[in-house]
Amino acid sequence: MSTETQIEKVRLADAFASFSDHWSPKVAGDINDMQVKLAKFSGQFDWHHHEDEDELFLVVSGTMRMGLRSGDVDVGEGEFIIIPRGVEHRPEGLNGECHVLLLEPNTILNTGNVVTEKTVLKPDRL
Amino acid sequence: MSTETQIEKVRLADAFASFSDHWSPKVAGDINDMQVKLAKFSGQFDWHHHEDEDELFLVVSGTMRMGLRSGDVDVGEGEFIIIPRGVEHRPEGLNGECHVLLLEPNTILNTGNVVTEKTVLKPDRL
Repeated sequence: MSTETQIEKVRLADAFASFSDHWSPKVAGDINDMQVKLAKFSGQFDWHHHEDEDELFLVVSGTMRMGLRSGDVDVGEGEFIIIPRGVEHRPEGLNGECHVLLLEPNTILNTGNVVTEKTVLKPDRL
Repeated sequence: MSTETQIEKVRLADAFASFSDHWSPKVAGDINDMQVKLAKFSGQFDWHHHEDEDELFLVVSGTMRMGLRSGDVDVGEGEFIIIPRGVEHRPEGLNGECHVLLLEPNTILNTGNVVTEKTVLKPDRL
């Protein structure tokens, strides 16, 4: 058995209130080799793909437009979308900003196959 | 590049409305070697642990009481808790039922180290 120290719940509203920068995912938890990250999106991100990693986006508040080469998908509060590895995508926060829970391998780089001004090499932890 | 066929969002409210059984997680998506599952909890589950798998519980509606040997933690809507591998736990749906999004390795057995009447060997897919 592992020790049970520090098993604490995370309240998403409080966690999102603890930071304000856009496009800078914060690590909120580890599940095996995956991480839960929280991020605020505003405006358009860069087109990119991840060679080996699938990625889940769960919208906690606001609306995210997921740009896909096959057509955009608008994802609202209480909805999620999974982008399989290899698929080009461009997230966008509509109407000011949206709050998104990301679930992805801990090896992932936020901008995938490209390095841009939005690349975050080492995400902060909440 | 992968093909982009069948990238569809999932609306949690609709997905939860599509089934009614308790303690029977439904696979709602795959992210690398992890799965998103949706489940309805009512009453107490069985004490168990998972030898090698961490497990995330995000409460979408209602309240889940996570029984831990160190003391219960009540997890409400918009809150999540991660149970590390090896830690004994007993989920419970309070006040009728709660709706929970689970994130866990696709190798996991819902009852972990024990087999009970609640064991689901092969979860359905939504």
